Amino acid sequence: MTHTKSSAPEIPGYGFGLPGTACSPVSNEDLRQLEETIGWSTADEAVMWRYAGLFREHAEQMVDTWRAVIGSQPHLARWFVASDGRPDEEYKARVKQRFVQWVIDVATRPHDRAWLNYQEEIGLRHTPAAKNRTDGSHTPTLVPLRYLLAFIPIVTNIRRILESEISNGDGLRALELAWTKAVHLHIALWARPYTRDGLW
Amino acid sequence: MTHTKSSAPEIPGYGFGLPGTACSPVSNEDLRQLEETIGWSTADEAVMWRYAGLFREHAEQMVDTWRAVIGSQPHLARWFVASDGRPDEEYKARVKQRFVQWVIDVATRPHDRAWLNYQEEIGLRHTPAAKNRTDGSHTPTLVPLRYLLAFIPIVTNIRRILESEISNGDGLRALELAWTKAVHLHIALWARPYTRDGLW
Repeated sequence: MTHTKSSAPEIPGYGFGLPGTACSPVSNEDLRQLEETIGWSTADEAVMWRYAGLFREHAEQMVDTWRAVIGSQPHLARWFVASDGRPDEEYKARVKQRFVQWVIDVATRPHDRAWLNYQEEIGLRHTPAAKNRTDGSHTPTLVPLRYLLAFIPIVTNIRRILESEISNGDGLRALELAWTKAVHLHIALWARPYTRDGLW
Repeated sequence: MTHTKSSAPEIPGYGFGLPGTACSPVSNEDLRQLEETIGWSTADEAVMWRYAGLFREHAEQMVDTWRAVIGSQPHLARWFVASDGRPDEEYKARVKQRFVQWVIDVATRPHDRAWLNYQEEIGLRHTPAAKNRTDGSHTPTLVPLRYLLAFIPIVTNIRRILESEISNGDGLRALELAWTKAVHLHIALWARPYTRDGLW
């Protein structure tokens, strides 16, 4: 399969901006307040843009690193296991492509309605509302919220991957902070479908 | 009021290890798997212990810094407002004392059953199940989960506060990572009462 990672990639189940993707109930005002809480600023957006090429280049390496952590822990790997008790390799491969694209999207996508809707879709795909639906798979119908939250420090620790690329310590620090804020914003949005009515 | 912050402090509503505090339904095995997911290790615990004095010394300054962020944003400050529309200063003062103690506890408390139960209690105190109950206050009955999650990058960014104290860059980095892991562990536990049945 050929695609350019920087434009519209042909990734199975990658529904960004497509019909059939969830509609986020999060208002623009909710989003603005969430960004303000995190401290997300135009400076953070600019830092992410400046280093977008690095994310494109290293996205797969990052995901491989994270997936190795998942693969090494049975309580994390089990959410990728089919009903026959074996890892669902096709599901894993499809999810991986989307995970790689997510890294690039975090660095490059503006926080508009299409982006917001797709974060709702990603959240739903971790819950019984939509897990397996996109891929016709038969893995458990959930990734528990606690693992999504507990995995954040793994995903925000990009220093080891990027420090060889960025010699400027302040630049690396700024990128690390911007990435950390962005990841938390995404996870906060993904947490919505997990949350009891009115408590999100 | 006099108390030593390092032993059992006389803080109103600080129910750590006391009867009447919630019982966490999280099993020891759940906790172990959560710690493993985060990458929490004995090395992290040792780093937190090594710098416990710094946390004791700076806990109030940290909380003041974070509370200034909250106070500057109406969508965060509103959860501390009484039914008469004014900030509930008594509630704020009591919560602040417990928040300061929480910082010290993160650095010093072992992850045992009393600790686990108190994290459940703290989580509940952010939800309609128990907000205001401890303090007899009349603020809104919720801090929405999204703000708890969005506030994490504010709380994990301790570098500016501690870098003048730790001249060793690697030591500061290790402390920052250990603190980040610990905060996510706590928030993952606090998220439990917010979560739909079976999805935590």
